[in-house]
Amino acid sequence: MEKKKERIKRNVIVGQSGGPTAAINSSLAGVYRTAIDRGYKRVFGMIHGIQGLLEGRYVDLSDHIKTGLDEELLKRTPSAFLGSCRYKLPGISEDKAVYEKIFSILNDLQIDCFIYIGGNDSMDTIKKLSDYAIVTGSEIKFIGCPKTIDNDLALTDHTPGYGSAAKYIGTSVKEVIRDGWSLETEKGQILVIEIMGRNAGWLTGAAALAKGEDCDGPDAIYLPEIDFDVDKFVARCREMLKTKRSIVIAVSEGIHTKDGTYISEMGSANAYVDAFGHRQLTGTARYLCDVLGAQIGCKTRAIELSALQRAASHIASRIDILEAFEVGGAALKAADEGESGQMVIIVRTSDDPYQAGTELKDVHRIANDERLVPLEWITPDGTNVTREFVNYVKPLIQGDVAPIMVDGIPRHLFMPNYQQIL
Amino acid sequence: MEKKKERIKRNVIVGQSGGPTAAINSSLAGVYRTAIDRGYKRVFGMIHGIQGLLEGRYVDLSDHIKTGLDEELLKRTPSAFLGSCRYKLPGISEDKAVYEKIFSILNDLQIDCFIYIGGNDSMDTIKKLSDYAIVTGSEIKFIGCPKTIDNDLALTDHTPGYGSAAKYIGTSVKEVIRDGWSLETEKGQILVIEIMGRNAGWLTGAAALAKGEDCDGPDAIYLPEIDFDVDKFVARCREMLKTKRSIVIAVSEGIHTKDGTYISEMGSANAYVDAFGHRQLTGTARYLCDVLGAQIGCKTRAIELSALQRAASHIASRIDILEAFEVGGAALKAADEGESGQMVIIVRTSDDPYQAGTELKDVHRIANDERLVPLEWITPDGTNVTREFVNYVKPLIQGDVAPIMVDGIPRHLFMPNYQQIL
Repeated sequence: MEKKKERIKRNVIVGQSGGPTAAINSSLAGVYRTAIDRGYKRVFGMIHGIQGLLEGRYVDLSDHIKTGLDEELLKRTPSAFLGSCRYKLPGISEDKAVYEKIFSILNDLQIDCFIYIGGNDSMDTIKKLSDYAIVTGSEIKFIGCPKTIDNDLALTDHTPGYGSAAKYIGTSVKEVIRDGWSLETEKGQILVIEIMGRNAGWLTGAAALAKGEDCDGPDAIYLPEIDFDVDKFVARCREMLKTKRSIVIAVSEGIHTKDGTYISEMGSANAYVDAFGHRQLTGTARYLCDVLGAQIGCKTRAIELSALQRAASHIASRIDILEAFEVGGAALKAADEGESGQMVIIVRTSDDPYQAGTELKDVHRIANDERLVPLEWITPDGTNVTREFVNYVKPLIQGDVAPIMVDGIPRHLFMPNYQQIL
Repeated sequence: MEKKKERIKRNVIVGQSGGPTAAINSSLAGVYRTAIDRGYKRVFGMIHGIQGLLEGRYVDLSDHIKTGLDEELLKRTPSAFLGSCRYKLPGISEDKAVYEKIFSILNDLQIDCFIYIGGNDSMDTIKKLSDYAIVTGSEIKFIGCPKTIDNDLALTDHTPGYGSAAKYIGTSVKEVIRDGWSLETEKGQILVIEIMGRNAGWLTGAAALAKGEDCDGPDAIYLPEIDFDVDKFVARCREMLKTKRSIVIAVSEGIHTKDGTYISEMGSANAYVDAFGHRQLTGTARYLCDVLGAQIGCKTRAIELSALQRAASHIASRIDILEAFEVGGAALKAADEGESGQMVIIVRTSDDPYQAGTELKDVHRIANDERLVPLEWITPDGTNVTREFVNYVKPLIQGDVAPIMVDGIPRHLFMPNYQQIL
C-alpha cells in the first residue's frame, strides 16, 4: 500500500561506472547530500555499479559518510569510491530476465531514484532502464550523471572529471618540459608523453596548458582526430632538433594512421580487451621513441601518464570538484522532481568570467555519441591546438582543492575492501 | 694585487649536475641568498654545469632572481634551473688542459667560491677540482651540495630531493591503488609500478608510504638490493590473486636476477647509455606485465613514474625544500669560511620530533660510494620494507610548499632557453 503514496519519500540508489576520475566521488557526495537534504530515508551505493547490484552487492552510504569531514574526504578521494564496472546491459528484448532481476532488487530496496554516474556506456544503461520502467509501469526514476576524464560526452559543455585531469596533465607536462630542458644533450633528446583518449583529443590537447610566460609548452601535440603519419612525424622531429636540443611531444594513445591502424598496435601492445570491445591502448609513446631512436639516433624517453592522470586528486581542479558535486545534486533533484531517462548536462553561458549551470537532456540523444575536438580547434598542420581550445579548457582547471594531508600524504575516505561486501 | 687581499669578497659560481629533482633549485636559492647576505658581489650560475662552463656558458643569477618572489618561485621550480650535465671530469693526470681551462675561466670571473649541487658523480668533480686547487695553489674553495632523488649518497642521513620524490611516490601509489581497486575484475588485475633507483631502493621503498588507515599500501615492493626471481614473482602474484582482485606491486627499475641481469634488459629496453656508462633502465614493469599476462592471463597495467617522480614540485615536501635551501646556504657558508673539498651532509639527531642539522664531510670519503637500503630494513621474504624504513622516510615528506598557481597551473621561475645563452 505504501508504495502508492507518492509523497512519502523512500530510498535512493547510486552507482559509479566506467573509468575512474578525480571528481566522480564529488558527484557521489552531491547525490548523497541532496538526497538527505530532500528527505530520502536511505542512500544505497551499488558496489561495482550495475554489475555488483545484480550480485546483490550494495552498501548504505550513511555507514561510510558519517560526518561533514567524511563528505569532504569523499570529494577528495580519487577513483570510484563504490567501485566501478564496465558491464554492458543487454537489450531489453535480448535478456528480459536481467531487467526483472534488477527491478526486483530495486523494489526490495524501496528505491525511488536511481542515479548512475558515468560516461557514454553508463548513459546507455540509464536509457535501457528508464525504457524498461516505462514499459512495465515502474515509478522508479533513472537519471544519469555525467563523468569522464575523456570529455567526449555529447550535448554537455564538458564533463566532470575532465578539468582535474586537464590540470594534472598541464602541470605534469610543464614539469617534464623543465626536466627535459635541464638534461638536454648535444645530440638532442625527444620526450614523448602519452595521454589518454581513444578517439577524442580533449585530454591530449590539455598539454597546451603547460604554455605560459614561464614555459613554451609542448613542441607538438598530436590528437586522434587527425590521421597520424609516422614518417612526417620523424621528419618534423628531425627538423625541430636543428634548433632545439630538448623536444617534448604530447601524443594521444589513440593516434592512428590513415587506414585506422593504432600506432600502439605497431608496438608490442597489451592485448587486453574489455567488455565493450575496447582494447587497452598503450605503448604509443614507446613505439614512437623506438622509431626516433632508430632513425635519428637521439636520446628518447617515453612517458605514459597512464592511470596517474585520472587518479591525481592531489591536484584536482576546484571548479571541477564543485561542478561534479553540483551535477550530482542536480541529478538527484531531477529524479526527486519526477524526471527520468535524462542526463544532467553542463551549459556554459560565459568564458570570462566563467559561468555555467545545469540542464537536463534526454539520454536517448546522448548514449554512445562521442564528442570529438572540433577540427577548427586544431592547427591546420595538425600538430597543436588553437587559442580557442585553450580558452575553452582554461576555466575548467581553475582553483585548488587542498588535499587533507595526514602524515605527509593525502587522506582519502576509508572504504573496506569491496570483496568483503556481499 | 687585489687577488691577495683575503678580506675582499669577490664572486661565487654555482652549478647543478646529474638528474634533476624538485628541490635542487631550492639549494640554488640557498646558495644565492647566503652569498648575497655574506657580501659577495656577483653570483654566477654555470649553464649545464661544468660542461657548460667549459664552453664559457654562464649567467649572472641576479639577472634572473630580482625579487623575493623570484626566490620563492625558484624554490618551487622543478628540475635544474641552470641546466644540468652528466659530464665526467677526466683524471688530473689524464687531461691537465681541461683543468687549466676551468681555472682560467674561474680566475677571469674572479671566483672565490665554487659550489656544485649534485650526487655521487658531482662529488667526484668537487674532489678533483679541490685537489687540483691544492696542487696548483689556487685559493678557490670547492664545496659540494648534496642532491639526488635516489638518496644513495654516503655519510649523509638523506639527500635533498629524496623527500619530495618520496612524497610524490607515496601519493601517486596510493591514488593508483584506489584506481585499481575501483576497476577490479573477476579474473583479477595486477598493476606494476616502476620506480627509479638503479642500485638503491630508497625511492621504491617509499611506495610503502601509501599505507595508512585508509589504504593497505602496495601488495609487494621489490628493491634492487635483493636479487629478483621472475618465477617466484609470478607464483606470488598467482597466490595473491586468490584472495584479492586488484594487486598493486612496486618495483625498482634496477631489479635484477641473481646473475646480475636487469629485468629491463629482458624486454625491449631503450639502449641509451650516458657518459658515466649508465644505461637508461626502463621497461621493467612492462616486461613483468607481459610475463604475468602470458602466464596467469590476468589483466595488467604497467605504470612507469619516469621523469614525473623527480619533477613533481607541485607536491614537494616542505621539509625537503627547506632543508635543500639550508644545505645550499651551508655550502656557501663553508666555502666562505675557507673550507674546500667538502660536502655538506645532513645529520639527523631525532626521528620524532624530527630534528636535523648540517655538517661537513671530506668528499674523498663520499665520491662514488653508493649507500643502499640496509638489508635489515627489508622484510625477510624480500617483498616489502620494514617499519624502520617507514619511520626513517616519514619525517622527510612532511609539510607542503603551496605552488604559486597562475591561471590554474603552477608558476615556475622564467629562464630563457639555455641555447640562447652563450
